[in-house]
Amino acid sequence: MNLNNAKGTQDLMPEQKIVIDKLINLLKEIFELYGFSPLETPAIEKFEVLASKYAGGTEILKEVFKLKDQGNRELGLRYDLTVPLARVIGMNPNIKMPFKRYQIEKVWRDGPISSTRLREFYQCDVDVVGIKSMIADAEMLAIVSRFFSMLDFEFTIYVNNRKILTSMLNECNIKKEIQETVLLSLDKLEKIGFKGVENELREKGIKENSIEKIIEFISINGTNEEKIQQLELRLKEKEGLNELKELLEYAKKFSVKNIVFYLPLARGLSYYTGPIFEVKLKESKVKESVVGGGRYDKMISAFLETNKEIPATGLSFGLNRIYEALIEKQKTAKKTVTQLFVIPIGIKAIELIELIEKIRSNGIKVDFDLIGRGPSKNLDYCNSLGIPFALIIGEKELKEKKILLRDMKTGKEEKINLSELNKLKEKIKP
Amino acid sequence: MNLNNAKGTQDLMPEQKIVIDKLINLLKEIFELYGFSPLETPAIEKFEVLASKYAGGTEILKEVFKLKDQGNRELGLRYDLTVPLARVIGMNPNIKMPFKRYQIEKVWRDGPISSTRLREFYQCDVDVVGIKSMIADAEMLAIVSRFFSMLDFEFTIYVNNRKILTSMLNECNIKKEIQETVLLSLDKLEKIGFKGVENELREKGIKENSIEKIIEFISINGTNEEKIQQLELRLKEKEGLNELKELLEYAKKFSVKNIVFYLPLARGLSYYTGPIFEVKLKESKVKESVVGGGRYDKMISAFLETNKEIPATGLSFGLNRIYEALIEKQKTAKKTVTQLFVIPIGIKAIELIELIEKIRSNGIKVDFDLIGRGPSKNLDYCNSLGIPFALIIGEKELKEKKILLRDMKTGKEEKINLSELNKLKEKIKP
Repeated sequence: MNLNNAKGTQDLMPEQKIVIDKLINLLKEIFELYGFSPLETPAIEKFEVLASKYAGGTEILKEVFKLKDQGNRELGLRYDLTVPLARVIGMNPNIKMPFKRYQIEKVWRDGPISSTRLREFYQCDVDVVGIKSMIADAEMLAIVSRFFSMLDFEFTIYVNNRKILTSMLNECNIKKEIQETVLLSLDKLEKIGFKGVENELREKGIKENSIEKIIEFISINGTNEEKIQQLELRLKEKEGLNELKELLEYAKKFSVKNIVFYLPLARGLSYYTGPIFEVKLKESKVKESVVGGGRYDKMISAFLETNKEIPATGLSFGLNRIYEALIEKQKTAKKTVTQLFVIPIGIKAIELIELIEKIRSNGIKVDFDLIGRGPSKNLDYCNSLGIPFALIIGEKELKEKKILLRDMKTGKEEKINLSELNKLKEKIKP
Repeated sequence: MNLNNAKGTQDLMPEQKIVIDKLINLLKEIFELYGFSPLETPAIEKFEVLASKYAGGTEILKEVFKLKDQGNRELGLRYDLTVPLARVIGMNPNIKMPFKRYQIEKVWRDGPISSTRLREFYQCDVDVVGIKSMIADAEMLAIVSRFFSMLDFEFTIYVNNRKILTSMLNECNIKKEIQETVLLSLDKLEKIGFKGVENELREKGIKENSIEKIIEFISINGTNEEKIQQLELRLKEKEGLNELKELLEYAKKFSVKNIVFYLPLARGLSYYTGPIFEVKLKESKVKESVVGGGRYDKMISAFLETNKEIPATGLSFGLNRIYEALIEKQKTAKKTVTQLFVIPIGIKAIELIELIEKIRSNGIKVDFDLIGRGPSKNLDYCNSLGIPFALIIGEKELKEKKILLRDMKTGKEEKINLSELNKLKEKIKP
């Protein structure tokens, strides 16, 4: 048998899983600080639900992994966490609003793969359903800011507003029907430059004077305030600008820094209706956005085929990319969670179990020699796994009631009284 | 569109997911105290890997959800976490032994469903690979004991040993080829009683004097030591008994209590080779076992088609059942993680954002009125979600720099100085 993973899937060995878990825990902690609670939905959904035209659209449907159960029901693996959220809202009409939930789970897309694009990957979503006010969007930016600050990352939050884009395109005489495709070209500005955008728009049959106007708009420069001033002079429809100003005002109260109003930001998905966001890291090899999101006030109610308005806004964190950026910063990888390894010298492990259990009860992650190797082999084992401390115990140590704590990095050794095991915790900081 | 879940799958709404997450975190914490590190493998595996005859066998294969990718590759959703573990060991020949890993993830089985059996459910496995000594098995029991003690559950750990069963069946003149099927009947003792087992064995064509001997064996009564003494007189092959004695000796050092040596315990899966375990809760409506496991010294090497011996032992925690038992004990359910809800009176939420951010920086999970409801509606909202504390702030409070903390259960209110926000944490204990 040829032992390997299914194409586009990967194992996370302990040294990787430890880092991913650290990221997940930090995200959970921050989401919960902001009053978001966890939700879990199944990986398997009815295909009919996934295929709703108000969900991801036909493009994404080509990438759904389809399956059937014994009853020949048509099923699929979820490709995002937004459709399941809409379904949950629909199935629980009495749910308390606002519904603030986060969900960190795998999704599957049977598409082309690359080093940064797998067929099974994490989606990490935080959304608030039921709030129209920009205060909810500002809170999203506060979450972003707190998360990356805690990880010591330099970042920029790019914001824009779909309504501003629409009124800009109206100003440029772009018809409603082709606005989406124009936005797709705008989104590529960073990749293909101004000339590239011009050419693409020309190929799409946009008139020269419209192209000229668009380029003029997206060339507007300056601080956020200066850009807004410029646009206030040029745009007739002001709703998007007002939302943006309100968002920035709230964000200031939340002490969110590094916000850049970036007019070419359009984001692919057509369901956005208001503010849209993208976060990029500075000084990282990860150049793609690490967070994306925005407001989608019409998607859930359209999905549920109800007339009741169900506003919503949210973010999706790109866990795999953030992982890559974090790995780049952290030079050393730990292959184990173990903090302390107990090495018996000339005595049997069984004589140390009671002591080890006491140390564990103090909250220290302890492993010990289960094989009966010699001391130097045990120290090699510690080094190869990156265990930071070893506790060396022989008959002499047991008699004197003093054990030897060895810092594996520095090689420094220190005697610890058996009666003072509670002090170990301070010495062994994670 | 008919909005519902795929058959045999379920959503975990926040009030359920909060409890499951609590259990998962406690398990992770304890596994890590014992030096086990996390591993993650994909949900999708090559069908060929899942279908290995050394894995779950043909019965389980009928329940595999099959799928194909764009390249027409035959894939399936994993039905357990043991096959992926064996694959990881096989793909990483230089992995350091012992390899101590835990894995808490979903598995899928397309079988008949019931209230306690779904098609998508958690598997929560902890295994050590590479250790033959019974000390590894004893550590498994220590993990069980610490986990259920921390949850304040009364429990019994039933242990047996496959080698004891084999030597017992040899003693009763049961041929190798039919020993497995005899064990399947033994496993039902609790359900169908001695008479039931007798009848089943008779139907399976076992001779009367063999049946008589088997019943005699499984009727042996007394303490663990008394049972072992009895068996030492009756069994020629003593290896299993010696392993059991060693296991019990180690377990004593680990202070594991409530171990019952239970000879009819056989466990269905044929890959077990030594100690086997099952844990049941006392005084719970959950009557089925909540943990199962044992030693499987031959399965991994057979799976990898190598001659190198790869011993292993491990446990699987039944997360969904433990959840049911925990829910039974906990009378109240929280619909949110939020600890504190901020209610502005006569002022706008935006004026309180800075204060709220400060409280969050103190590690308190805070939400606030995003809608602009009146005070009594806000208190209703707190009550309906089970938020334990509310902070009531009006202009007067802001001027006096004192805010009102309300305990939602008792209705007691207390004034807190704005300069002493750090004291909030003590008052708002989770």
